Amino acid sequence: MRTYAHRIDAMAGTAAVVKGLFGALGDPELISLGIGAPAREALPVDLVREISNDVLRVDGRGVEALQYGPTMGVLDLRQVIVEQLLAPKGVKTTADHVMVTTGGLETISLTCELFINPGDIILVEKPTFVHAMETFEMFEAHCVGVEMDDNGMVMEDLEEKIRKHHPRMIYVIPTFQNPTGRTLCLERRKRLAEIAAEYDVLVLEDDPYRDIRYSGEDLPPIKSFDTSGNVILCNSFSKIFSAGSRLGYLVASDDTMAEHMKDAKSALNSHTSLLPQILCAEFFKRGYYPAHHKMICDLYRERRDVMMECLEKYFPKGTKFTHPDGGLFTWAALPGGLNTTQLLHEAVTRPDVKVSYVAGEKFFPDGAPITNCMRISFGAVPPDKIRAATQRLGRMLCEKL
Amino acid sequence: MRTYAHRIDAMAGTAAVVKGLFGALGDPELISLGIGAPAREALPVDLVREISNDVLRVDGRGVEALQYGPTMGVLDLRQVIVEQLLAPKGVKTTADHVMVTTGGLETISLTCELFINPGDIILVEKPTFVHAMETFEMFEAHCVGVEMDDNGMVMEDLEEKIRKHHPRMIYVIPTFQNPTGRTLCLERRKRLAEIAAEYDVLVLEDDPYRDIRYSGEDLPPIKSFDTSGNVILCNSFSKIFSAGSRLGYLVASDDTMAEHMKDAKSALNSHTSLLPQILCAEFFKRGYYPAHHKMICDLYRERRDVMMECLEKYFPKGTKFTHPDGGLFTWAALPGGLNTTQLLHEAVTRPDVKVSYVAGEKFFPDGAPITNCMRISFGAVPPDKIRAATQRLGRMLCEKL
Repeated sequence: MRTYAHRIDAMAGTAAVVKGLFGALGDPELISLGIGAPAREALPVDLVREISNDVLRVDGRGVEALQYGPTMGVLDLRQVIVEQLLAPKGVKTTADHVMVTTGGLETISLTCELFINPGDIILVEKPTFVHAMETFEMFEAHCVGVEMDDNGMVMEDLEEKIRKHHPRMIYVIPTFQNPTGRTLCLERRKRLAEIAAEYDVLVLEDDPYRDIRYSGEDLPPIKSFDTSGNVILCNSFSKIFSAGSRLGYLVASDDTMAEHMKDAKSALNSHTSLLPQILCAEFFKRGYYPAHHKMICDLYRERRDVMMECLEKYFPKGTKFTHPDGGLFTWAALPGGLNTTQLLHEAVTRPDVKVSYVAGEKFFPDGAPITNCMRISFGAVPPDKIRAATQRLGRMLCEKL
Repeated sequence: MRTYAHRIDAMAGTAAVVKGLFGALGDPELISLGIGAPAREALPVDLVREISNDVLRVDGRGVEALQYGPTMGVLDLRQVIVEQLLAPKGVKTTADHVMVTTGGLETISLTCELFINPGDIILVEKPTFVHAMETFEMFEAHCVGVEMDDNGMVMEDLEEKIRKHHPRMIYVIPTFQNPTGRTLCLERRKRLAEIAAEYDVLVLEDDPYRDIRYSGEDLPPIKSFDTSGNVILCNSFSKIFSAGSRLGYLVASDDTMAEHMKDAKSALNSHTSLLPQILCAEFFKRGYYPAHHKMICDLYRERRDVMMECLEKYFPKGTKFTHPDGGLFTWAALPGGLNTTQLLHEAVTRPDVKVSYVAGEKFFPDGAPITNCMRISFGAVPPDKIRAATQRLGRMLCEKL
């Protein structure tokens, strides 16, 4: 019997849960409302080919793309992040403080490398992104859930839990949150930045959905209100450029933090693949983003509208939904004691249903499971399939009441 | 004053040393014999453009490249690894046990995720790859050095240190080792696999240079002699395809190990960037590797020959060199008490020298530094520059005796 490190035991539970999420996805008749991936129509395949054909030349950026490169990431991509993605949102920083990572999860890993010791407490939204909890458990941290309402994390409960648990970090997904689709309101964003300073606690602001807002008013990141340097902003190109490129970024608060991030990244994997970085930088520098952004927002808005209309129509009366202004999914709380974990197998396998979703139970950090919720994704599902899937699943749920 | 995690303190020392390595590289007149990167002429820029232009299509592999993908890596790349890179070397495995990583260092990080707890001892060659030590220190492991001779790690000293320190792992670079260029002989490869079984200790076999052998006889990997499953084989595409693509791979010994690797990779960064994986897979599947491999071996053989000839000619009498049959560098032990750490600044800045190298001291794990050695790279340096640099540096060294 081989012995593994303590962290492997610590994460064994969550890893098993995560694997359960996508178990039954081989059936071609199955419609998945479970996957949080972008729409295939939202992937800029032709633009990326055009750019790669231009840059992959010995007298272009071909040698740069295939040779070792800078640990912090390709400079012009970091400048794009600063100028096109952060400055318009009120986040003032420089390319020296921005590091490119191999996707959003790696930003979480690297933040933990810098700050988390085994046994530390991390406060998270209840519910929260299950893969982030898996990463926290790899660092042998303990997640404690903070209550949410329609406006995101409840600040009174947060402060109470800070006083009780003395957490090292607060992990928050402020915009179109995973899994609930909820958005932290402006007042709480300001308050969270104050709390970070008052209690000297880190806030990891993970904001991968913020740039796919297609209705309502844009809200500034928590980081834009940060005066203490305790707010670490993470984001990802997965939803606005390409998920498979695995490109994310971290914003450090000062030179020392940036230097430690660089050391941790260097020890982890030297640097992120360069060709995807260059393709992404050129995509923004060539001005392709605004039209692409409009196209994907139009696409997701239509899908959101169809989904919300169908859910109202087909799901049981008394179901409560999030009405998200952006992102890729909504969240449903079912009435009448329906248990989404128990119903999943039937939903996936029954010949007249064949619809998958993600049972909400998986997203709750504490031992007190809430079993009547589900995450319902519309981002990667064409409108006709949204209609068919919600009708089939809704009919089954109504039968159970 | 912000507090960082213990691991950040643990790695602070090594990180500072590593940064020192490439400090003074802005000067265009400087010839660097310090960088272990591949030659720019060895990067298949035109082939990669051709492939990317073919595959980046909606009816090709464009959506696959830009959408989320499998944690273990793209299947056909894993099959290429099994069939074209491992089977010919006597390593029998299947694609299920091979995981693609974001470069060679990430294979080391992931192996540590699986097996290393804070305080564990890792035995390493003395000297060894400085970035690997940095990674080990991030996991709060302690490195203990094992003696080497011209045939690699000395087995008697290894066994003595196993009995004394009860290490969790032995880290070894068996072929054209970094930094010494030495190769572990056949007999010791067999013995090391036996020791892994006898003492139930893990062996991390890191073999990124093995595929650029351009003279002498090929030797089977340690993994090919493994009967206990305690040998974990890591390799990289950095030297044979592209360093900037950040592609490496790990070979797990069994299903459980593969499953844990997958969980750790999933929590770390979901998966490695897909476009580089697809480009690399196609490069091998289209049969481009044999001709490319011959081209780069011819290139490096010539540079090695020029380097060894010039070192004999220009360096002080009594200097001892490794004569490597492959790889990108050699190792010199200087006579007469010359201190390569102290001489580096003068070598880099003196107008009639302007040559950099890597001072050997950095590569020694223990507190007992050996100061008369240097790593001298020829891989990325054209022959005329090798001649000029060795002449200039050799003249300076001779002056000092």
